[in-house]
Amino acid sequence: MASGKILVAQGGGPTAVINQSLVGVALEARRFRNVERVYGARHGVRGIIDQEFVDLTQETSHNLEMVANTPSSALGSTRDKPDEKYCQEIFKVLRAHEIEHFFYIGGNDSSDTVRIVSLEAQKNGYPLRCIHIPKTIDNDLVGSDHTPGFPSAARFVAQAFAGANLDNASLPGVYVGVVMGRHAGFLTAASALGRKFPDDGPHLIYLPERIFVLENFLAEVKATYDRLGRCVVAVSEGIHDASGTPIASLLAKDVERDAHGNVQLSGTGALADLLCDEIKSQLKIKRVRGDTFGYLQRSFIGCVSDVDQREAREVGEKAVQFAMWGNRDGSVAIRRSGNYAVDYALLELEAVAGKTRVMEDDLIAANGTDVTDAFRLYLRPLLGSGMPEPFRLRAHPVAKLK
Amino acid sequence: MASGKILVAQGGGPTAVINQSLVGVALEARRFRNVERVYGARHGVRGIIDQEFVDLTQETSHNLEMVANTPSSALGSTRDKPDEKYCQEIFKVLRAHEIEHFFYIGGNDSSDTVRIVSLEAQKNGYPLRCIHIPKTIDNDLVGSDHTPGFPSAARFVAQAFAGANLDNASLPGVYVGVVMGRHAGFLTAASALGRKFPDDGPHLIYLPERIFVLENFLAEVKATYDRLGRCVVAVSEGIHDASGTPIASLLAKDVERDAHGNVQLSGTGALADLLCDEIKSQLKIKRVRGDTFGYLQRSFIGCVSDVDQREAREVGEKAVQFAMWGNRDGSVAIRRSGNYAVDYALLELEAVAGKTRVMEDDLIAANGTDVTDAFRLYLRPLLGSGMPEPFRLRAHPVAKLK
Repeated sequence: MASGKILVAQGGGPTAVINQSLVGVALEARRFRNVERVYGARHGVRGIIDQEFVDLTQETSHNLEMVANTPSSALGSTRDKPDEKYCQEIFKVLRAHEIEHFFYIGGNDSSDTVRIVSLEAQKNGYPLRCIHIPKTIDNDLVGSDHTPGFPSAARFVAQAFAGANLDNASLPGVYVGVVMGRHAGFLTAASALGRKFPDDGPHLIYLPERIFVLENFLAEVKATYDRLGRCVVAVSEGIHDASGTPIASLLAKDVERDAHGNVQLSGTGALADLLCDEIKSQLKIKRVRGDTFGYLQRSFIGCVSDVDQREAREVGEKAVQFAMWGNRDGSVAIRRSGNYAVDYALLELEAVAGKTRVMEDDLIAANGTDVTDAFRLYLRPLLGSGMPEPFRLRAHPVAKLK
Repeated sequence: MASGKILVAQGGGPTAVINQSLVGVALEARRFRNVERVYGARHGVRGIIDQEFVDLTQETSHNLEMVANTPSSALGSTRDKPDEKYCQEIFKVLRAHEIEHFFYIGGNDSSDTVRIVSLEAQKNGYPLRCIHIPKTIDNDLVGSDHTPGFPSAARFVAQAFAGANLDNASLPGVYVGVVMGRHAGFLTAASALGRKFPDDGPHLIYLPERIFVLENFLAEVKATYDRLGRCVVAVSEGIHDASGTPIASLLAKDVERDAHGNVQLSGTGALADLLCDEIKSQLKIKRVRGDTFGYLQRSFIGCVSDVDQREAREVGEKAVQFAMWGNRDGSVAIRRSGNYAVDYALLELEAVAGKTRVMEDDLIAANGTDVTDAFRLYLRPLLGSGMPEPFRLRAHPVAKLK
């Protein structure tokens, strides 16, 4: 422990609480007397290569607390996916600055980066402790009960559907809301928590864990519409056909891919518009509206779960404790230890890196278009306190005349 | 005052506080000893024709208070635009039920309905008091400082852009957010209140009060992107070319119109996608994302201005007082009487009905792509208390090595 320098960075898509983890690292690290400096890298691994470091040790604790409550990545993020050579560059910079602890807050792509950097350090006999701190609204990290960022995004989706359902009840028709989630349907499934009364929407939920068949979709929308005179549908942007081809990319003119080879699904309203066009033309329903929740669901300021905030802070703190008191690299995981309580564990990087969790079968209803009570029990405590609740006028009909 | 019956209904698009006005009417009316029954019509004027009435007098005050805090129209709404004949039908039903006071909560289309029904009653010598209670997220009623519903929607838009700006700063590129507003740009302009730091977005704001020229738009996006390495844009769904043709309808395959002859602009992501495609292809910028805020901005549960709640309740209460103590029909208007305080007036129906207010010139910056301080001073008090505020890490750069 010669230099006493630690480095923290943030990768991948922002969340409402990712800065809680950053601040958790910064404040907890300074409680260790061997830590002299806490550096932050601007824009993830890209900022390491470019040596764009800021000294978080010179921040005030007040401003850190304010930043912790601000959504999106305060240090900036990146979509760069480091290969072998990129990781060697990262390692070179860390060594030059005598960084001894590397904390990377991100999803499964970021955990893979931590894994490669960790291996590179071992290969070179450089004493670098590498810890992956989980973050993703997709909730798709294996080994965790859930991931920081997911609860707040889930709360946004549940509140959005609670409102969309009220809107749709007021002006009946079909409403399709498209939710983020490439492979895992957790966030789309969260729409179910927006229901209160038995006939509340979303009435149909389409997840990437199930094959999407357009004919079935239309028949299910029609059945609901015939029954209730309206229909609210939650659709994951990641829905795909039997061959695994995303429905969104079946119609996109120019498919855009990121450095990870992922097709761009967000930031376009194409999927919602396609599904609405099909409903209008095939079912002859006039009032059909589609919304794509887009970036609002991960960055909206002012919709956050207090449970999520607390846990995101704790994974940052625990990462530092695992690094300082443990003797191995790893990925911090949240474990449910009560109803509702959590504990934290350090998993092997290999157990998490690059792997994707999807919704377990017992969370999805047998008909494939709804969630189970097990999912509702799983998600409800994560949404936190003060969830707004809709109320209805009770029925007191007035007799018609004549 | 033989029957002691009053009727209240809600028309047009829902808002976050429209039920405050409904409950304001219901609770205030019962304080008058000549009021025996408060009826609500389901789905606006449609529910009058169909005699779909509920007896609000049988509601508990507790449930009414809970409903007041619930967004969207608790009685249901309608897009029906009554013509002469339709209004005669309305009048026939009101007379049959011996309704003596008719309160209609809605926008400028609804105020026109109230005007026609009022005339019909006069023509028939039937003593019906007709009061229009303002409501619209568009803020486009003439004679009012602002309209209930607008402040909460404006708060949603400001919070959404505050978050989108943070997201865009984290993962730089171009972000286009499309906001509701057919003719009036107030709601799109509210995006400016999401800014805090000098380089915060939205960097460009396009309003329906100004002619939209694609070439200028692209040049302005390019200039911002060149300067900041990123660009956040707020666009009204109502932007149009010099001939008045909506940019959205220039590309829509099947243009859908409602009963008022309005082209459907919301519930489709087409405009955002078109603008993003142009930016990608013309400016060769890779990371371009578009969101259409859609129905979230008017129905999201849990994003509401407390000032808006209070005023929406008061316009309902004042409507009843004007009806009971005044001697004429009219439309309730909010007048600003301090910084910040309001008072209420009853305007002639003819002064409001079917007219559209747009943003006054002094609220729009000379360059046409921003708002003025006058607009910021106008809007800020309406957004209410507890607006979430973003914070940043301060710059403490670490010297680069080598």
